[in-house]
Amino acid sequence: MDGNERALVGVIMGSDNDIGVMRQAVSTLKEFKVPYEVLICSAHRSPDRASLYAASAHERGLRVIICGAGMAAHLAGAIAALTILPVIAVPLSSSPLAGLDALLSSVQMPPGVPVATTAINGARNAAVLAVQILALWDPDLTESLKAFKGKMAEDIDEKNKNLTALLEGPAKK
Amino acid sequence: MDGNERALVGVIMGSDNDIGVMRQAVSTLKEFKVPYEVLICSAHRSPDRASLYAASAHERGLRVIICGAGMAAHLAGAIAALTILPVIAVPLSSSPLAGLDALLSSVQMPPGVPVATTAINGARNAAVLAVQILALWDPDLTESLKAFKGKMAEDIDEKNKNLTALLEGPAKK
Amino acid sequence: MDGNERALVGVIMGSDNDIGVMRQAVSTLKEFKVPYEVLICSAHRSPDRASLYAASAHERGLRVIICGAGMAAHLAGAIAALTILPVIAVPLSSSPLAGLDALLSSVQMPPGVPVATTAINGARNAAVLAVQILALWDPDLTESLKAFKGKMAEDIDEKNKNLTALLEGPAKK
Amino acid sequence: MDGNERALVGVIMGSDNDIGVMRQAVSTLKEFKVPYEVLICSAHRSPDRASLYAASAHERGLRVIICGAGMAAHLAGAIAALTILPVIAVPLSSSPLAGLDALLSSVQMPPGVPVATTAINGARNAAVLAVQILALWDPDLTESLKAFKGKMAEDIDEKNKNLTALLEGPAKK
Amino acid sequence: MDGNERALVGVIMGSDNDIGVMRQAVSTLKEFKVPYEVLICSAHRSPDRASLYAASAHERGLRVIICGAGMAAHLAGAIAALTILPVIAVPLSSSPLAGLDALLSSVQMPPGVPVATTAINGARNAAVLAVQILALWDPDLTESLKAFKGKMAEDIDEKNKNLTALLEGPAKK
Amino acid sequence: MDGNERALVGVIMGSDNDIGVMRQAVSTLKEFKVPYEVLICSAHRSPDRASLYAASAHERGLRVIICGAGMAAHLAGAIAALTILPVIAVPLSSSPLAGLDALLSSVQMPPGVPVATTAINGARNAAVLAVQILALWDPDLTESLKAFKGKMAEDIDEKNKNLTALLEGPAKK
Amino acid sequence: MDGNERALVGVIMGSDNDIGVMRQAVSTLKEFKVPYEVLICSAHRSPDRASLYAASAHERGLRVIICGAGMAAHLAGAIAALTILPVIAVPLSSSPLAGLDALLSSVQMPPGVPVATTAINGARNAAVLAVQILALWDPDLTESLKAFKGKMAEDIDEKNKNLTALLEGPAKK
Amino acid sequence: MDGNERALVGVIMGSDNDIGVMRQAVSTLKEFKVPYEVLICSAHRSPDRASLYAASAHERGLRVIICGAGMAAHLAGAIAALTILPVIAVPLSSSPLAGLDALLSSVQMPPGVPVATTAINGARNAAVLAVQILALWDPDLTESLKAFKGKMAEDIDEKNKNLTALLEGPAKK
Repeated sequence: MDGNERALVGVIMGSDNDIGVMRQAVSTLKEFKVPYEVLICSAHRSPDRASLYAASAHERGLRVIICGAGMAAHLAGAIAALTILPVIAVPLSSSPLAGLDALLSSVQMPPGVPVATTAINGARNAAVLAVQILALWDPDLTESLKAFKGKMAEDIDEKNKNLTALLEGPAKK
Repeated sequence: MDGNERALVGVIMGSDNDIGVMRQAVSTLKEFKVPYEVLICSAHRSPDRASLYAASAHERGLRVIICGAGMAAHLAGAIAALTILPVIAVPLSSSPLAGLDALLSSVQMPPGVPVATTAINGARNAAVLAVQILALWDPDLTESLKAFKGKMAEDIDEKNKNLTALLEGPAKK
Repeated sequence: MDGNERALVGVIMGSDNDIGVMRQAVSTLKEFKVPYEVLICSAHRSPDRASLYAASAHERGLRVIICGAGMAAHLAGAIAALTILPVIAVPLSSSPLAGLDALLSSVQMPPGVPVATTAINGARNAAVLAVQILALWDPDLTESLKAFKGKMAEDIDEKNKNLTALLEGPAKK
Repeated sequence: MDGNERALVGVIMGSDNDIGVMRQAVSTLKEFKVPYEVLICSAHRSPDRASLYAASAHERGLRVIICGAGMAAHLAGAIAALTILPVIAVPLSSSPLAGLDALLSSVQMPPGVPVATTAINGARNAAVLAVQILALWDPDLTESLKAFKGKMAEDIDEKNKNLTALLEGPAKK
Repeated sequence: MDGNERALVGVIMGSDNDIGVMRQAVSTLKEFKVPYEVLICSAHRSPDRASLYAASAHERGLRVIICGAGMAAHLAGAIAALTILPVIAVPLSSSPLAGLDALLSSVQMPPGVPVATTAINGARNAAVLAVQILALWDPDLTESLKAFKGKMAEDIDEKNKNLTALLEGPAKK
Repeated sequence: MDGNERALVGVIMGSDNDIGVMRQAVSTLKEFKVPYEVLICSAHRSPDRASLYAASAHERGLRVIICGAGMAAHLAGAIAALTILPVIAVPLSSSPLAGLDALLSSVQMPPGVPVATTAINGARNAAVLAVQILALWDPDLTESLKAFKGKMAEDIDEKNKNLTALLEGPAKK
Repeated sequence: MDGNERALVGVIMGSDNDIGVMRQAVSTLKEFKVPYEVLICSAHRSPDRASLYAASAHERGLRVIICGAGMAAHLAGAIAALTILPVIAVPLSSSPLAGLDALLSSVQMPPGVPVATTAINGARNAAVLAVQILALWDPDLTESLKAFKGKMAEDIDEKNKNLTALLEGPAKK
Repeated sequence: MDGNERALVGVIMGSDNDIGVMRQAVSTLKEFKVPYEVLICSAHRSPDRASLYAASAHERGLRVIICGAGMAAHLAGAIAALTILPVIAVPLSSSPLAGLDALLSSVQMPPGVPVATTAINGARNAAVLAVQILALWDPDLTESLKAFKGKMAEDIDEKNKNLTALLEGPAKK
């Protein structure tokens, strides 16, 4: 779905409303040059597709599955029930409860079926976590992650250079 | 599973730890003489069985499915995704969060796939709701429900007769 | 109130402020061609009307009552206290607490008087649940529900066809 | 129900399980020699009795109604809908949610129908508040309340005298 | 402060930011022709004035004090500590926590010092509650409250007449 | 109250029920040999005493005031309103809401009147924080704090020596 | 970083997004003429810098460190782990959970390592608290704080003069 | 620390109080024959050790780090800040807030530094997740995980055989 290379990471989400946030997972995977695939796939509205996706994921060569969902966010749990691959959940703040519902629905999994949960709307971190997992046996990704960590610290240094200007910037609205 | 009559209500639960609460649904169905079946069936640990159960429920003659589950309580939602029968959720207080996790995981379903959610540990009410649904086309159950409602008011009358004694009873611990 | 056919579903709400959300229940019932009636009726500001409505609902031929209310949302419980019909609550997010108050006020009913609670602002699902109940003895509605479920999965398939475009769409605001 | 004098305060509660806490309201009213009556009366299980109670309360000479209820605590709101007397709610911690459900169900009333809400399990304060209201036109109660306030401060003084001993008492369990 | 008549209700608030909400208490008191006074007075920023206000309120002829405050809303509790008059709290949603902080700070008072708490931003209900208290010994206010209750039910009847138009109104944003 | 030296830290609490937790503040101050005084003093039940305490604290030579209180925990805020000394709050878990009420009542202070809030039941940390403040101009306390920090790390080292035994200890109850 | 005088207060924050709120700490310190320094410094993205900052703070002459951070706000705790200086946390409302996450992450510190936590977005109070600490040994700051407290009460007096106009101002939006 | 094989998984925890729960991670790793090491190591009380542990983990050959901590649970975040290895958090319910504090402190990490969070007290799932990660390149672990998944479903089948007896067991306490 995304170029010729076989996808290592699947990014799935429960609704096309979730693209705005989940796009950050995709762009982060691109940044690290990790082949991925994307799919809209609801645990509740297209359950058969979700089951098939999960059941075939390992054999198709996927290594990690990232699932974004809001409200009673069952997608990650439904996928994790049917695969032995690591599954990462991104709870989304798409309901009046601001994502607390999605967070608890994602993270409070019963013993035996873990879901690695990130922050509410934490799509970027879901991708970084996937890269960290892949990097365990990939020296290039290991180097990329080290550079990424260094870059984060440098960016903050850069911000500090402009701090006086920032402090005198426009008032907080 | 429970007598010769074909079950109209399925009572399923995610773990044998849930029997203590879900037994109240069973005893209530017995009280109303509604044929039922019981099954332990986890959305996460036995997902194939859950899927088969949901997919075959309508054809097997079930009319309502009651699902008890705690934590990230996906059971009701997973069943509802695969059947057009009304699905009733009983969120259970089996985690440190006292059932708030199970409540939000059960009730916050996305548009198109409803789950009729009862109170935390509300197994008795789940059964009463199932009876109310079946009573829509069953005059005997209609009479039973009217008697049940009358009985609740009478029980309170009875309590009021002993109120003076109750007020002077042992101090609250 | 809505055409010549006798209403099977009553849609009531506590205030005209609730119309914006509850309209989704009405449009969904229309979609399934289920005859319905609509009423504004507050458990607190017009309690007598609410009592009369509940007490006469069964005899007037209603099968299901959907109640939308916000804040200390008592409407569904007040109706359920006075009828043996299934009562469905739609907790509304019309207070600073984003509907958590309405959710708990609706769902935490005491033993004996169930209220089938949907998601916060889940008016569409309340109607689908009502249709699921009516479909138990209505083959046409059964077919409609099966088609509805199929359509949901197809809609997602359709979205996936445009996924690449969607992913490259305008940034999330 | 309690002596010959006409009751000025009605203390009602949703279930006999609530007696343990609500008894504190009764004993406080006794302490202030305020005539009262007590009744178990559920908004959901004996709604007609609750309606009659509320509708007749003013004419029967009651001045304040105290309502204790847990879970989706509708009792105070249901009473307040049908009387112009001040209604005081005591939310009870009788569910896994520790009374947060009862608190929100009691306090979040819509404009026009107030319920004076006290702390979770705050039955003693409900009675003190009732006394404060009655004292507005009763000089004896006014004196009693002033003495009560003085006594609270003195009790603390007394505790301070024994503070050294208390500090060296048995370790907190 | 407001006309020649001696104030019976004091409306105080912690900050001038609270005027937008607390104005509803004032307008409701005007509606019922109850003499009142208004003051900005912070438990934390002008504690001496708050103490003086509370300590002199009873003698000055006030009958009820309404206190609006947000965040760690101590105003009602601080006033209640120093007077035997009924004190009504209006928790305000003026912090990121949407008033949950103000609600708990207002309602969870210790035994002996009650605060009658209304809904978050429930300034109108605070005034109605004050009127209900004053009406206990004022036949004119009693009549006004009965009319007020009747008017609420009529307003809803009126809304129902336009319901078809409302249902077809502009879509919810 | 505690020896001949003039107290530098005041430890006050709203009720003698709070001694079990607040005793940890006292024992920590003893550990650091900081002179202190202890008092039970309620913002609501003995407000005059609380006001006097706060107003005279600075002149009497106190440097820090630690306030323990539960429920609508106003003590720290009431003290802070009347002194320019740093005031530290210990929210106590003495209500069904497990201290969330006390935490929000303590920490959500309005601009201008800070309260330094510690963890729920964090009496030991309140004392350590007081010591940290006093140590800013006291070289002996500075040394004690450095030793205290070193000791914490060493204690963990010690625990690690016994880790194998600990891991094979009795099962968690 | 800010003038020639040696900084007594360090104001650090986890991200440049936090400047809008944390600027209020800076302006308050300026108001009191307390020398300060400002730094962006993340516990997670620039941990080494944070560690160095904390470890050297005492020797560099800092007296208090104010830390603003949102989400899983670890900055204050990470700094407090490495210094014996008083550390003040400002939890920021920069996530969908409105700062509840940052509040709990800041305040719930384990025994031995206190963090003095202020309100969500309470940057101004963090600075006032720092000034209160410095004033313990600085008579000029003591006078400034007394004037500051007086000014707050006067400002409220001033508001009360315009209260009638304010009450008739534009309706709350 | 545990046998001769080089540890692939580090299990660290903030306090020896956490052993009761974290022992489940250890026993699960043993079950899968994954070499591991265990350490008590606090982000706040032994921060240098935590930093050294994190900084050296990758080079020492660890592949995954599991961190158990309660309250303001910073351990996982502090470790994740200093390593590119996947870090898994187990929030512990060791405070009055039942683990909600630890959950939010663990999961709400800022962009760039992910922490894979499991359920409150989810130590067993943390270990299963670690095994899932290691299994990506280890065919034996892959087989073990498949067997583990199968076993979970079989265990439920087994429970169903005894369901009648279980339903008639002793009443829930």
